[in-house]
Amino acid sequence: MRADAKKNRDHLLAVAGAAIAEQGVDVSLRDIARRAEVGLATLLRHFPTREALLDALLRTGFDELTVKAAELEASSTPEDALVSWVRDGVAWTTEYRGVTALMAAAIEDTESALHASCFALRAAGARLLARAQSAGKARSDIDGADLFALIAMLAWLGDQPSLAPRADRLFGVVASALLTSAESGESAC
Amino acid sequence: MRADAKKNRDHLLAVAGAAIAEQGVDVSLRDIARRAEVGLATLLRHFPTREALLDALLRTGFDELTVKAAELEASSTPEDALVSWVRDGVAWTTEYRGVTALMAAAIEDTESALHASCFALRAAGARLLARAQSAGKARSDIDGADLFALIAMLAWLGDQPSLAPRADRLFGVVASALLTSAESGESAC
Repeated sequence: MRADAKKNRDHLLAVAGAAIAEQGVDVSLRDIARRAEVGLATLLRHFPTREALLDALLRTGFDELTVKAAELEASSTPEDALVSWVRDGVAWTTEYRGVTALMAAAIEDTESALHASCFALRAAGARLLARAQSAGKARSDIDGADLFALIAMLAWLGDQPSLAPRADRLFGVVASALLTSAESGESAC
Repeated sequence: MRADAKKNRDHLLAVAGAAIAEQGVDVSLRDIARRAEVGLATLLRHFPTREALLDALLRTGFDELTVKAAELEASSTPEDALVSWVRDGVAWTTEYRGVTALMAAAIEDTESALHASCFALRAAGARLLARAQSAGKARSDIDGADLFALIAMLAWLGDQPSLAPRADRLFGVVASALLTSAESGESAC
């Protein structure tokens, strides 16, 4: 890709990301083109369908979260890395409101254009979870798919105007449950 | 209300409940009338709007959950009563799929026809939570509105086809978090 084509594409992605954060995933491609001050044809040349655009957007976010997971693994204790990464995942998912339902559907649908990136995200979380479990710091009765479901659930909460004020507190409740091993919690006493 | 009018109304409510459980709250009034084998005009005479129908349906469910809360309070330990009631609340809310978003909006909107019944539901849960907190069995840093948000969140999860298989396990994770007081859990060791 030529440098100016890449620059245009990145600009469109940034505009689309902001539009989706404001108006949800149903925002029209026409609106995105208008906000980006390009013609609809130009937008469609880069992203022929809404799903192609979402895929590119999500992929960027997934890549950042995957890099973040590796950074946290190198820099933080297993439990801090896990909670911090889940927090980032929830924040990111909440920002792209409406995306949780798409992700939830894509994760099991190998035909979906979003499947690979959803799958990679889940794997990154599973690694952090397994690390914390190996260190005896996270409950042993959940797996990466549960973690993914918890993130989706908390992101949904943060996207409901009347429930969102509770999101931080309930993140804390869920995080404490992740770090509490039912068995070891009792035997440690 | 005459006995046969009440019987007709109850029949329409039962049919509407089944239709919503299958197709979500967006099911058309025309479909409900067809399933109930009555004319649309008859349905509209009982329930002039979709909201009136939803309100009647939800009110029935709320009343049952409120009665259940009182029964559990009389028959179970504070912690069992709380967890059992939350489980019932999640199951009921999940069954009426799509209803969580409506409830989340109605709880803060005093203009909504659903407001009073949402508010009553939340109060019933708050009483069970306060009882468990007083007994030192539930974490003290959450309130009835948090409990309502947790129920809504778990019900949303159970309504996502790809995440629903995780719902029971994650109910357990959240329930364990409710019953774990962050402070007392540590000082007990």
